[in-house]
Amino acid sequence: MTPEEIDEFLAAPRLCHFATTDERGRPRVRPVWYLWRDGAFWFTTRLESRHTGRDLSTSEWVAMSVASEDRPYRTVIAHGRPEVAPKDREILLAISTRYGEGPGRRWTAIAMREPDRVVLRMEPSKLISRDYGTTA
Amino acid sequence: MTPEEIDEFLAAPRLCHFATTDERGRPRVRPVWYLWRDGAFWFTTRLESRHTGRDLSTSEWVAMSVASEDRPYRTVIAHGRPEVAPKDREILLAISTRYGEGPGRRWTAIAMREPDRVVLRMEPSKLISRDYGTTA
Repeated sequence: MTPEEIDEFLAAPRLCHFATTDERGRPRVRPVWYLWRDGAFWFTTRLESRHTGRDLSTSEWVAMSVASEDRPYRTVIAHGRPEVAPKDREILLAISTRYGEGPGRRWTAIAMREPDRVVLRMEPSKLISRDYGTTA
Repeated sequence: MTPEEIDEFLAAPRLCHFATTDERGRPRVRPVWYLWRDGAFWFTTRLESRHTGRDLSTSEWVAMSVASEDRPYRTVIAHGRPEVAPKDREILLAISTRYGEGPGRRWTAIAMREPDRVVLRMEPSKLISRDYGTTA
């Protein structure tokens, strides 16, 4: 996929599946919202009340996968070490309202009151895109 | 979700995102086909020409995540240690034709000629299901 095709693919409000390594070295994965902006992914999690957030304290590398559910299958996979930043209303709104304006605003109001809520910014160390066409 | 709701959810031809740990202890994740049958997940990979397959030689635990892309968000996440078995035409067909009869049959014909093609059977050690309703 070209850089423009990747931007267009990642602009759609798909979920991404976010993988971490737990304290025993086992993989963990869950669907999360994301925002792709200026060459970086933004996510949000909670450092204490989410496994995903706790894993970041013992394992700095993460991987993520976004796929189209129908043929032609397209997929973007990225690896990197996210920076953890304090929660930021503008970023939380930008992430959450991609998936619906009203629900995103309501979600952000709640998230801003969560003490361990953070945002993650990940510039991919590696980004793999693939368009499988209709044959796969 | 009830066991019946989980079965119904997993019967739809969604992709699952399959996470492994690489030889450096970093997570890896990619979309794969799956089949849920009699309380076990079946997958297929290649032991040598796929990172996912190679990771299994150094890390026996995997995690997988399936999600509905639209509200109400529903998700099934499973952890386990897959058993690696030789490729089996019936299983490859059962997995691949879930995602389209014709493409699945063509894909299976090719896959049966791949020397390192295997099937994986994973009885989940842990299965987490969640229906977020329309609020998330």
